[in-house]
Amino acid sequence: MEKLTIIKVGGAVVEDHEALSSFLDRFSAIGGNLILVHGGGREATRTASALGIESRMIEGRRVTDGAMLEIVTMVYAGKVNKGIVSGLRKRGRKAIGLSGADLNCITSVKKPVVDVDYGYVGVVKSVDAATFGALLGMEAIPVVSPITCDDGGQLLNTNADSLASAIAVGMSALYEVELIFCFEKKGVLSDPDDDDSVIGHINPALYRSFKEDGTVSGGMIPKLDGAFDALAEGVSFVRITNAETLDQASGTHISL
Amino acid sequence: MEKLTIIKVGGAVVEDHEALSSFLDRFSAIGGNLILVHGGGREATRTASALGIESRMIEGRRVTDGAMLEIVTMVYAGKVNKGIVSGLRKRGRKAIGLSGADLNCITSVKKPVVDVDYGYVGVVKSVDAATFGALLGMEAIPVVSPITCDDGGQLLNTNADSLASAIAVGMSALYEVELIFCFEKKGVLSDPDDDDSVIGHINPALYRSFKEDGTVSGGMIPKLDGAFDALAEGVSFVRITNAETLDQASGTHISL
Repeated sequence: MEKLTIIKVGGAVVEDHEALSSFLDRFSAIGGNLILVHGGGREATRTASALGIESRMIEGRRVTDGAMLEIVTMVYAGKVNKGIVSGLRKRGRKAIGLSGADLNCITSVKKPVVDVDYGYVGVVKSVDAATFGALLGMEAIPVVSPITCDDGGQLLNTNADSLASAIAVGMSALYEVELIFCFEKKGVLSDPDDDDSVIGHINPALYRSFKEDGTVSGGMIPKLDGAFDALAEGVSFVRITNAETLDQASGTHISL
Repeated sequence: MEKLTIIKVGGAVVEDHEALSSFLDRFSAIGGNLILVHGGGREATRTASALGIESRMIEGRRVTDGAMLEIVTMVYAGKVNKGIVSGLRKRGRKAIGLSGADLNCITSVKKPVVDVDYGYVGVVKSVDAATFGALLGMEAIPVVSPITCDDGGQLLNTNADSLASAIAVGMSALYEVELIFCFEKKGVLSDPDDDDSVIGHINPALYRSFKEDGTVSGGMIPKLDGAFDALAEGVSFVRITNAETLDQASGTHISL
């Protein structure tokens, strides 16, 4: 099987011009098959606020009514996505910006209402691996924004971490996939106050003990749960690292 | 040579929800190879105004500084483009939204400063016909927003009529191309006050006499000049019509 590297880069990098530029320098130097999935959270909050629309977040997820859907579509699929695609062109690479609606490449369903109605928020149902494969075959780098689409053509705001995992799982049918989550820390830290206390490797047994002793807590738990799910569903390697060391074998390696 | 229909739809249709929906109903029923090029003018003006940024137009062209470039990228490549792409998915078609930066498919240069510096405004230099051909081969409908990109990765705001003509000329190397400009009138009118006074056919000799006697004037002149240029450069058919009769052989047919 051919190798494929899928990298998820978060809002903190994307919304900072210099950090994004430095990330793209490193990213564009990586060889082989590549897919980039980006977020863009606070950028949407800023634009919404400038337009006089208040952002409502519940448990880290954006409540997305019709007006907010227009804003996240403009910001994520327009400004952020085309900024990255043109930034890659500047660096001599050929990229293709995608939402889930483009080429019908990602199909979502509206997140079911349990306690909270998040509005136009989607959960990925399927990924068209053959379509992504065809784009990779054109030597293009798919750059995926977290706007997906249901079967009926409704755009849906989608969590970028979950989207990256779903694409990685879908692509593992055709490729040996490494999924890299790129965020502001150097990896999973054993001491949250010490940026250099990166845990080099986590497997399920270690994860259990880290949760029990409190080494891992808060927002890292859904990230790691997602990583283990992706491995269980066919992804070969998962790594959590930061933009500065993306191109090295650094960060936290996660395995079954 | 295979046939290819390229349709340009303007801002007045794109910004009116009902008009767009009715246009997409007709457009999605057209068979064969299709490319759609869209504008979105007043939509950008509205968003800019809501963000407290004033739009400056000189001779119908938008002066585009850095802040305005962000807005047109959000509105054209984000909101309008993904609205059309998802609308086509709703109608059972597979579309791919593109700016010129995507797949490096359209290369522009910054419009040279003669009397006016329009800022980040682009003039199309080249169209990658093979890339568009590959997407058509995937049975996708390219939906092109009027944001293009120069060789150095700079996004540029581009006139959608000129963009449609440039794509038509570029594609005529590989396809027998019909270019249809879809606007609010039924075609070129002999009496601007009578919507039914459509001139069925214009050739260069008729065009000369229409200009002399004032039948054709104002904004119709650059449209027709562009149409004749496209025909001279290899496009097979050009037609000017409106969204309601897009699917019929109606409107004004232009030929050499």
